[in-house]
Amino acid sequence: MMNGSLGHSSELHILEHKLRVSNLKKDAISSYTHALIKISLLPRSRPRFFSFTETRDGYTIIVEDDLCKELPQSESIDMPDLVWRVLTVSAGAYGSHQLTGINRIVKTVISPLADFKISVLVISTYQSDYVLVKEMDLDTAIKCLSQNYKIFKDSGMGLEPVTLSIADRLDGMTKMNERKTDEHRPIVHPFTCPMNRFHVTSLDSRMLPSLTTILLDLMFYSKTPVDERYEPFFHISIVEGDISLVLDSEALSRFPEGSLYTNTNDEGWKMIRVGDTPLGFDESGVAAQIAEPLADVQMSTYYISTYGLGHTLVPESEVDKAIELLSSLQVI
Amino acid sequence: MMNGSLGHSSELHILEHKLRVSNLKKDAISSYTHALIKISLLPRSRPRFFSFTETRDGYTIIVEDDLCKELPQSESIDMPDLVWRVLTVSAGAYGSHQLTGINRIVKTVISPLADFKISVLVISTYQSDYVLVKEMDLDTAIKCLSQNYKIFKDSGMGLEPVTLSIADRLDGMTKMNERKTDEHRPIVHPFTCPMNRFHVTSLDSRMLPSLTTILLDLMFYSKTPVDERYEPFFHISIVEGDISLVLDSEALSRFPEGSLYTNTNDEGWKMIRVGDTPLGFDESGVAAQIAEPLADVQMSTYYISTYGLGHTLVPESEVDKAIELLSSLQVI
Repeated sequence: MMNGSLGHSSELHILEHKLRVSNLKKDAISSYTHALIKISLLPRSRPRFFSFTETRDGYTIIVEDDLCKELPQSESIDMPDLVWRVLTVSAGAYGSHQLTGINRIVKTVISPLADFKISVLVISTYQSDYVLVKEMDLDTAIKCLSQNYKIFKDSGMGLEPVTLSIADRLDGMTKMNERKTDEHRPIVHPFTCPMNRFHVTSLDSRMLPSLTTILLDLMFYSKTPVDERYEPFFHISIVEGDISLVLDSEALSRFPEGSLYTNTNDEGWKMIRVGDTPLGFDESGVAAQIAEPLADVQMSTYYISTYGLGHTLVPESEVDKAIELLSSLQVI
Repeated sequence: MMNGSLGHSSELHILEHKLRVSNLKKDAISSYTHALIKISLLPRSRPRFFSFTETRDGYTIIVEDDLCKELPQSESIDMPDLVWRVLTVSAGAYGSHQLTGINRIVKTVISPLADFKISVLVISTYQSDYVLVKEMDLDTAIKCLSQNYKIFKDSGMGLEPVTLSIADRLDGMTKMNERKTDEHRPIVHPFTCPMNRFHVTSLDSRMLPSLTTILLDLMFYSKTPVDERYEPFFHISIVEGDISLVLDSEALSRFPEGSLYTNTNDEGWKMIRVGDTPLGFDESGVAAQIAEPLADVQMSTYYISTYGLGHTLVPESEVDKAIELLSSLQVI
């Protein structure tokens, strides 16, 4: 029965990184600039998984466990004592359908984890999508996802297949079968859509040194937009040398022409922010509530979780349709 | 009598910049990284006069008066409430003798100011040499230096000649004539010469963005050398777009080949550090004590003042001669 629903050999990889997620208050960024540059941007920085997202409410910073000691403790930073693991579907497993972003993994990863009440953080990048689960939930997640994927764990020495007992596999199947796939989850949080036009881009890591001053400016010296219909949002991730940026048109305009890659059909994206006050890390299903209905209508979406808020990027031309659809599912 | 001693039309310019000099404790650099990057290295940073020097004892930071508010107040920073003005000899005034560094201005600027008991900070750069005097000493300095130079003041709108009364000019001449030029000043502070080999370099400001990560590393993430015979020392100045670096061979090696300019005859420089505990800003004559005897033997020298310490750079091949000469003048 494994892989049956996808019809080809689909692999899900559990990366070896052990991550810590922290939230930094808006006004404390100057005290953390030194540490964050050291982790991410120096010539000798080699982050294996680094994610930095500025939102209206603060900065969500994801770093490897052994680097989080670089971040000074203070009242301005909230760093729960939780280790997160990274799941990602191997690139070859997407098959022929050319959807962009997370709708490739909504039905096979995000929905099942929501059904199992496992809370996740989703980080879309230009190259891939990463689903973070708490280390304490990892065994349950494996049980859940083994219905759809061959699962491999990266031990640091290479990928090793994960084998499950028959009981565990049956347990997973039973839960899966309870799911009513024709019914959408209610959306239990408010959402808003700021005016900014966003772009999902990448840069060649060899270009990083020459673009560092622009990145420094965007990461650490942002200004709140004067027009309240616009929201501050900037995201950079560095994963094994792959650098990905989600930034609005104003930020994009600061880069020299041609220094960033965008998808050839990049028409600009709008962001739907879910949640108004930080939702915390314990709630499950938030990403699924938004992503499932959009995947059902074949909409390309990116998703970036921050400290309890969800940011869904949808094509600019489809934003009205997305909002209409999501509004119809809202129960607040 | 003006210009008589130099035999051609020599101009000394008083730049318009009003500067503040501060000293930052060694362990506090991480709290000041954010502000210092903003002042000096962002795409939109346009410092008109910025100098940053790391020494064994701390960081000496010179910024324009209106930028010093960017530096947060704390117990770790000492920023006396003193405004400094910048004197520099116009490039055309050096005439035909091709000495490098401050010996071009020892007899005509540094010595006379020492005779007038005016304390100075000297900042050599790749392109020029700057002599800083306290604003409250500026009128006296003008009186003193008008014997040797036509003096022009930059009002921000252009250079304007400074005219002196006959009484002031006579006063200056009288003091000048009291000086015994054949007798060296005693050297009243200890000096040491670490093992590092230094280089006085410049970089094209168009290259700055691509070299920023290296500069960040050198400015804010230095490590104390393990071998005690080496000393931490790194200097960067940005003056009206001219960027100058004084750095040792280890630091130089981090830059891509050809990205920095060095003098064609750059053979490496040794540093003679004068003072063992910070000397303060009130003592005058420290630079003159060292620079005069070296100028007398036609030695090329650069000089960088920090918070009460003096750093003289001499050609590596002449360092033994320099130390011998200075030792003979030492009175401690």
